[in-house]
Amino acid sequence: MTEALIHTAENSGTTAAQAQPGPSAGQASAVDALSPAEVEAAVHAIADRSRHAARRMSTANRAWKDRGLRAVGAALQENVQAILAANAMDVQRGKDNGTSAALLDRLTLTEARVAGLVSALENLANLPDPVGNVVRGQTLPNGLRLRQVNVPMGVVAAIYEARPNVTVDIAGLALKSGNAVILRGGSAAEATNQVLVRVLREALESVGLPADAVQTVDQFGRAGANVLMKARGRVDVLIPRGGRDLIQTVVTNSAVPVIETGEGNVHIFIDESADENMAVEILLNAKTQRPSVCNTVETLLVHSGSTVLPAVATALRNAGVRLHVDHRIKAALPGVETEAATDADWATEYMDLDLAVAMVDTLDEAVQHIRTWSTGHTEAILTNHLANAERFIAEVDSAAVIVNASTRFTDGGELGLGAEVGISTQKLHARGPMGLTELTTTKWIVQGEGQVRG
Amino acid sequence: MTEALIHTAENSGTTAAQAQPGPSAGQASAVDALSPAEVEAAVHAIADRSRHAARRMSTANRAWKDRGLRAVGAALQENVQAILAANAMDVQRGKDNGTSAALLDRLTLTEARVAGLVSALENLANLPDPVGNVVRGQTLPNGLRLRQVNVPMGVVAAIYEARPNVTVDIAGLALKSGNAVILRGGSAAEATNQVLVRVLREALESVGLPADAVQTVDQFGRAGANVLMKARGRVDVLIPRGGRDLIQTVVTNSAVPVIETGEGNVHIFIDESADENMAVEILLNAKTQRPSVCNTVETLLVHSGSTVLPAVATALRNAGVRLHVDHRIKAALPGVETEAATDADWATEYMDLDLAVAMVDTLDEAVQHIRTWSTGHTEAILTNHLANAERFIAEVDSAAVIVNASTRFTDGGELGLGAEVGISTQKLHARGPMGLTELTTTKWIVQGEGQVRG
Repeated sequence: MTEALIHTAENSGTTAAQAQPGPSAGQASAVDALSPAEVEAAVHAIADRSRHAARRMSTANRAWKDRGLRAVGAALQENVQAILAANAMDVQRGKDNGTSAALLDRLTLTEARVAGLVSALENLANLPDPVGNVVRGQTLPNGLRLRQVNVPMGVVAAIYEARPNVTVDIAGLALKSGNAVILRGGSAAEATNQVLVRVLREALESVGLPADAVQTVDQFGRAGANVLMKARGRVDVLIPRGGRDLIQTVVTNSAVPVIETGEGNVHIFIDESADENMAVEILLNAKTQRPSVCNTVETLLVHSGSTVLPAVATALRNAGVRLHVDHRIKAALPGVETEAATDADWATEYMDLDLAVAMVDTLDEAVQHIRTWSTGHTEAILTNHLANAERFIAEVDSAAVIVNASTRFTDGGELGLGAEVGISTQKLHARGPMGLTELTTTKWIVQGEGQVRG
Repeated sequence: MTEALIHTAENSGTTAAQAQPGPSAGQASAVDALSPAEVEAAVHAIADRSRHAARRMSTANRAWKDRGLRAVGAALQENVQAILAANAMDVQRGKDNGTSAALLDRLTLTEARVAGLVSALENLANLPDPVGNVVRGQTLPNGLRLRQVNVPMGVVAAIYEARPNVTVDIAGLALKSGNAVILRGGSAAEATNQVLVRVLREALESVGLPADAVQTVDQFGRAGANVLMKARGRVDVLIPRGGRDLIQTVVTNSAVPVIETGEGNVHIFIDESADENMAVEILLNAKTQRPSVCNTVETLLVHSGSTVLPAVATALRNAGVRLHVDHRIKAALPGVETEAATDADWATEYMDLDLAVAMVDTLDEAVQHIRTWSTGHTEAILTNHLANAERFIAEVDSAAVIVNASTRFTDGGELGLGAEVGISTQKLHARGPMGLTELTTTKWIVQGEGQVRG
């Protein structure tokens, strides 16, 4: 489900452009008009303005930042017709280029969706400020007072797909946490993003916050994204948001530290002691409540000693779920419509009403399957056996490990973090649901009265 | 002060080998015997064994890991003659190749230095285990019990220079925090490291811990380092330890998440209200106590309204410090021996008895100088003016900001972290002194009794 929005230097030439004739064609002239060195200089100048704005944002107190967020919300409402008009152009261009219905849906804004963005900004304004929080502190034996406090990252860059809601979402999160943000959205949403960025900047300026706290490099196309990825020192952190291809391209090519988010090949293991009713309820919730998101279950592992499989399979089939099963599961489900699973099924994040199902004979086998195929997002065990629960918690190396509950709970809102930046599937800096605090770093503050080291 | 130990694929051919004829020449045949694909396969196999060992380390409790650390210490003492004999070979080879006295000193082990390593391992064994620490936790309104706990990273790789003490040091830190480690040391220390790794592995095995928790890729030379840097997914975090060139090469070329450590172009700003005695004491300590380390001061900024400059300069000169000064400082120090500073001096981390000195007219000017030249490690202000202290703390964007104390306190031991992995100068994951906790990640554990999302 990914657009190839960014490319390495090696493949950003005509071949890539030809392979993606539609959405970016309208911008080709603007990009082509500048040499690589000119694009680099222009993006670096944007990053330097972002650094300057970040310094001002870092000393803005919470009340001021919240005023900014509410001003952005009000401005989005005032400008809703201009936003929808620009969005209609992007959508029409997408239709003309044969963009799929799913991508068009992500691209489309409506009055209700804009209202949703406004209410998300109000929610952000109501959250505590992560900046200034004291992580730890003490007075040392020599009298030095020591505090480690959260401070803004500085310049946050985001590379994402043609979903204009992300423009407002990531800008709001970055601003609340005292950062400046540089945006690179999907070119298919360029007209919408252009209006959104203008509205965001004007709203910030109206309350005395720096307009340059929100900037875009969309005008430079893929070349701009490539410069951003190499701007270590100018950009403090890069957050890719989108599908697998986009994230892998950023992760592989970026010299700027990246926070990898989102990919969830999520497993549930039903051991031999699990309750049937609980298994049915949790599988239905984890697979069908919102199949297109990253915390939805993609593979079910069932212990061969369990008796719950027929009830679970029937409930899922009645809910319209297609079952991709190994031969033992098939044999255990006479009369149930299934498809034969291949390795591709164990590897696939369907994000749809599909579920791979395999039978295992031991907890070890379940853990081994998860180690082989999981993306390290979320795995759950359904069990009444204490030792199995403890072993699963200890041995499964994922961002979230769940016992007897739906995998859909791996979510910043559900876990009490307030706003969510994304679900990190890497181990550095942030793992699992990322809140506002994960958009900050820390600073050690040491205060004395002349202490020297002995 | 950096050896060029690793190179990108583009420059790892004969030119690089010719440019560095000495230390690596002895290993050339081993490296040349394997094709790039064979090196990659061999290093990946090492990483896979490391992953397996990491799983066993992650479930070893503190008592067991501490037994392992003490067994390593005892084995180092038992094998001290073999270690020193191997080291003597490396040192002789270095001498034959014309290695500098400073590098030879770093390369050399003695009985006393080995004893120092043993006592550092004992210190590590006495520290609390970071694994299992609950970072935060709560019971959610729906009854879900939520904990975020520290768990080992998994596979930690270290790329470092020809300092064999780092081999033991980084292995001890990784083991204490429940990780497996893959080492790539400087080829000039290869004989020493080979013995050290053997001793480490045997000691771990003697207490039932996996020998593969410590492995080396030294046998593959630079090619091995290059594979490590690209092994995202197989290696969880890469820690370069050494000089600027090594760190920049790793940071620029690694697809594995890197923790950047060490570079410290450290500033002290003396404002117009600072005490003369305090300024003299702190400057002497910050510059002369141990000039070769990263938290030593490199540039002094003096407010034009301050009267302490002559006393500070005289004390530093008497301690043998060479002063590299701008023209206003020169004019303010008649009769004091100085050299004219250029931009290179503001940029240089001398790590020696040299200090750049500039005069500024305002706090803003001092902050601006720091923003231009600092590496973001540590900066200090000496002041009796509360507002100046507060503004300096707020506006200087460094890992550690110090008021009225020596910059030498930016150190894991001094700040109460116990062991120190290094001083991180990046903003992601760890910033400032890194302790054992920074070699862990976190896992969210969610426990319920059938909860589903509404």
